[in-house]
Amino acid sequence: MEAVPFQLEPIGVVRSPLPDRASAPCQGDEGAPDAWIELAPAVAAGLEGIEPGHELIVITWLHEAERDVLSVYPRGDLTRGLAGVFATRSPDRPNPLGLHRVTALEVEPGRLKVGPLEAIDGTPVVDIKPVLGSADER
Amino acid sequence: MEAVPFQLEPIGVVRSPLPDRASAPCQGDEGAPDAWIELAPAVAAGLEGIEPGHELIVITWLHEAERDVLSVYPRGDLTRGLAGVFATRSPDRPNPLGLHRVTALEVEPGRLKVGPLEAIDGTPVVDIKPVLGSADER
Repeated sequence: MEAVPFQLEPIGVVRSPLPDRASAPCQGDEGAPDAWIELAPAVAAGLEGIEPGHELIVITWLHEAERDVLSVYPRGDLTRGLAGVFATRSPDRPNPLGLHRVTALEVEPGRLKVGPLEAIDGTPVVDIKPVLGSADER
Repeated sequence: MEAVPFQLEPIGVVRSPLPDRASAPCQGDEGAPDAWIELAPAVAAGLEGIEPGHELIVITWLHEAERDVLSVYPRGDLTRGLAGVFATRSPDRPNPLGLHRVTALEVEPGRLKVGPLEAIDGTPVVDIKPVLGSADER
């Protein structure tokens, strides 16, 4: 891993039946499919302890997003008026980080099946975190 | 904004009474204080539409974290055994992104008061997103 400040290193990649943005729902719970996350070999050991049924937050780098956007029509709906990007979940934003709450479905060496996930095939993954439950579960 | 792949641009900085990691709780709901987020002037327009009471997810760059870490003792508790970093919320991880669920408390031009926030003073902020509620609220 490099240590350049603010330089994200991909930890893996999404393998999904979704080929492009046009086919992806806005959010995972709007009909998105399950998908595999293939981990980079250098960081695959970081999956240790993740089991099927765990609730996770996957953070992706939305590599097709436009970064020079500060105002958007939420969900592309022109009737709703413009909103600042930080008040929306638009993928087009200064730092195009995608935040996806998913359930772990299968865990194999070096890869993890999760769902539902609206990120398209080939989307780089930059972090995986557990959803926090009660203090006991921490 | 630069368009270098995987290069995060800070959109703001945390102004908090927490001076260092030793004084910060592990999570916001464990006694963290309120804090201001000062937006970079170039992206301040992205706050439009955020109002007091809104639930937000702030994503930070944990600039003091170690990135060369794949296994940790969760919450620093040596009795619990090692876990893969992606099964924990350790700040030390390949891409040290901090995920913080907060409430918007005050909105002023170019800055936003939120709480509770366990990130220390000077922590760079890289994204702000709304918590998603029901489909109607999207």
